[in-house]
Amino acid sequence: MGISGSVFLFFRGYTAMTQEIRFVLVGLGNIGRNLLDVYVHRQEEIARRYGLAFRLVAACDSGGAAVDEAGLSLELVRDLKLAQRSVAAYPRTGVVGINAADMLARISADVLVDASPTNLATGEPGLSCVRYALEEKWHVVMANKGPLVLAFSALTRLASQKGARLLFSGTVAGGLPTVNLGVRDLAGSGVQRVEGIFNGTTNYILTRMEREGIDYAEALCGAQQAGIAEPDPSLDVDGWDAANKLVIIANSVLNRPTTLQELAVTGIRDLTLDELAGARAQGEVIKLLALAEFDGSDFILSVRPTALPQEHILARTGLWDMGVVYYTDYMGTISAVIEEKGPVPTAAAVLRDMINLYRGN
Amino acid sequence: MGISGSVFLFFRGYTAMTQEIRFVLVGLGNIGRNLLDVYVHRQEEIARRYGLAFRLVAACDSGGAAVDEAGLSLELVRDLKLAQRSVAAYPRTGVVGINAADMLARISADVLVDASPTNLATGEPGLSCVRYALEEKWHVVMANKGPLVLAFSALTRLASQKGARLLFSGTVAGGLPTVNLGVRDLAGSGVQRVEGIFNGTTNYILTRMEREGIDYAEALCGAQQAGIAEPDPSLDVDGWDAANKLVIIANSVLNRPTTLQELAVTGIRDLTLDELAGARAQGEVIKLLALAEFDGSDFILSVRPTALPQEHILARTGLWDMGVVYYTDYMGTISAVIEEKGPVPTAAAVLRDMINLYRGN
Repeated sequence: MGISGSVFLFFRGYTAMTQEIRFVLVGLGNIGRNLLDVYVHRQEEIARRYGLAFRLVAACDSGGAAVDEAGLSLELVRDLKLAQRSVAAYPRTGVVGINAADMLARISADVLVDASPTNLATGEPGLSCVRYALEEKWHVVMANKGPLVLAFSALTRLASQKGARLLFSGTVAGGLPTVNLGVRDLAGSGVQRVEGIFNGTTNYILTRMEREGIDYAEALCGAQQAGIAEPDPSLDVDGWDAANKLVIIANSVLNRPTTLQELAVTGIRDLTLDELAGARAQGEVIKLLALAEFDGSDFILSVRPTALPQEHILARTGLWDMGVVYYTDYMGTISAVIEEKGPVPTAAAVLRDMINLYRGN
Repeated sequence: MGISGSVFLFFRGYTAMTQEIRFVLVGLGNIGRNLLDVYVHRQEEIARRYGLAFRLVAACDSGGAAVDEAGLSLELVRDLKLAQRSVAAYPRTGVVGINAADMLARISADVLVDASPTNLATGEPGLSCVRYALEEKWHVVMANKGPLVLAFSALTRLASQKGARLLFSGTVAGGLPTVNLGVRDLAGSGVQRVEGIFNGTTNYILTRMEREGIDYAEALCGAQQAGIAEPDPSLDVDGWDAANKLVIIANSVLNRPTTLQELAVTGIRDLTLDELAGARAQGEVIKLLALAEFDGSDFILSVRPTALPQEHILARTGLWDMGVVYYTDYMGTISAVIEEKGPVPTAAAVLRDMINLYRGN
């Protein structure tokens, strides 16, 4: 698990006795960079409230890495990324061309944060990093979905064997605590059905089509301009992003080993304004839902455009919303919705996991 | 902390290696009795999924107690209560007239579950029980709000000193994980505003007034007939129940020591159909909200009827709903709503806390 120490941190004359946690960050894209930025702003409050201080001892991106057991400056790393430069340019300790695996071998830490890009074919480079970290008994916090989609059971088993914790609350619907709600808040009760709007891109598109009467192509364009859709939007619009998240939910909340191949997945590419109008005439709204439906012996898992009654909480979600509804046997029906613009809430979710690894109670 | 063992439990030929947790239950009203009933139904699944078995070693109500370190039959205790009899009638081990404090002194356990009636003057008998349990290093799970409203800081400090955990997710809005969302899922981010519908009775009444045009008196009558309002409904309709819950949220989520006396509290007794109509004409709906509003240096805490835009998620809550909205700096705006009828979801929330005391990860 490594050695973490206690330090005195001085903030404007206030001394906080804190437990220092060394972390390694793989991936410095939107999530990684914003994680650093949020922590810079919240560092003092986190030390005060939780008695925790996180020291960044290594960070890498596609260009290289920086390693310093004394701690890297979060502001400096963040600012390099804002300037669209590689962390390999970090003064003194930056190294060009070193990859994530090499970087991990050079450092001791308490926590790995995997914010590397989701690769659904191999899970790499994240999957190897996560395995390495768990073998070293480091805790792991994930924003990267790939390893969880490809190897959920193996990774959770490894974590358990090593006495390390694997948290991933930021992997399903950004900052919305979908996983936490399902795993912790429904513990003991039985989930009968799950309905989720887990993909922001498609909800933005469908909401614009519904409310403004613009067609799919125009709404997609708008989504790209608004920065919520990629130049190649397939992963989102074909339903695969939502499907990956449903795989994670099935494994974690429903305790059901699940692979992506089991899901029936239909995206929104072929939806027309006529279909939306037809639904509207029935008092319904079409949303791209991730669904887990219990058929008496197993859950049927799918992602598909679904007509919901217009008063349904998910039917009423808007441009920047995602949400989930858990139908249970003993705990009633619990719904949650997040309104979030941009990557910051997902970064904040990673930070909450880091804190929750150590927060008492 | 006591001695808990591992046992083999046999379920229909399936052997589950489980960790056995001894618990004591104070209070056998709606919550206590339903806790036992839910656990009876979910016992096998809980053993299978979490490797946990909860053994009831003592239980008390206003008539007496039953104590058995070998374990009481949950079904038998539940059925005594369904027959409106005291647990003092439990065969062999039932004792008439023994109070909670005496009962606790006769047993060793791992967890105290306080489901005793909320007393906002003294917090008793729950407060003494909770103190005793924490001094003995037992964990504590609370459905009873009184001790938390009266002595939050003292109890959490004691728990921390003793290395015991104090959980209370079922004390704010039934089964809705209001506390858990705020404490665990927003960790690291800053809460700027909280809006809550924390009292089911008043939401039922206001929803009927709004949607059916019946007046307060008639809606209250309907609520009493539906079993969601007491013969003396003051605690609910005068806003005190919601206020107690807001005190708990202020202490736990906002990390702000708070007493009930600090809150400005107005209930719904004086609301008229004219006022509701006036709001409706403005496109608004009146709900009884618990509010925490940051004024730049502190939170202003109140419970009061509030006009919300009709598209607001809380404005759209119905007869059996409660909900919360957390506005944050970095994690967007997170809303959660529960639909729950009757006391079972609160009992299920107590069970989830019991499981989460021990659940790995």
